[in-house]
Amino acid sequence: MTEKKSADENTIFVGNKPPMSYVLAVVTQFNGGSDTVQIKARGRAISRAVDTAEIVRNRFVQDAKVKDIKIDTEIITNEEGRNSNVSSIEITLSTK
Amino acid sequence: MTEKKSADENTIFVGNKPPMSYVLAVVTQFNGGSDTVQIKARGRAISRAVDTAEIVRNRFVQDAKVKDIKIDTEIITNEEGRNSNVSSIEITLSTK
Repeated sequence: MTEKKSADENTIFVGNKPPMSYVLAVVTQFNGGSDTVQIKARGRAISRAVDTAEIVRNRFVQDAKVKDIKIDTEIITNEEGRNSNVSSIEITLSTK
Repeated sequence: MTEKKSADENTIFVGNKPPMSYVLAVVTQFNGGSDTVQIKARGRAISRAVDTAEIVRNRFVQDAKVKDIKIDTEIITNEEGRNSNVSSIEITLSTK
């Protein structure tokens, strides 16, 4: 029960599903014994990642705090081989 | 030239215009002598606020660093008097 989990297991990638799908995934991580969960998103899903973190914190895991937020730019190569930049966010929630 | 500016003057609210409108506003603040600019947004504009910060930092004001990022939930009352929650973000860029 106290085994150490890898970073990937504790990372939730937010995409285009409704926010509650990701909220459930984050809450499940915390309930499974994780004390830190990372929420990641790119592009338009960034707003949904913030919604996810806020809903978890306000409604479901009230001792979870926003420990860190990082933003970055990733380079995406599309099918035609052209590069474009997309913003990304990484929100770390922690109950520690 | 070294007069102290109020927080509001240094705050750019990101809405639904193209990101470059807000990039220009932020760059103008820095060029006008501010060493700290806050970028704020709510709801779906949050992604655009992150884009704005990243474009400023990568292309226009390369000594600007992300000093702080805060997320929060605001309660909005609509015309029918019903409350709804909306996520918000506040990104602080600084050249100090």
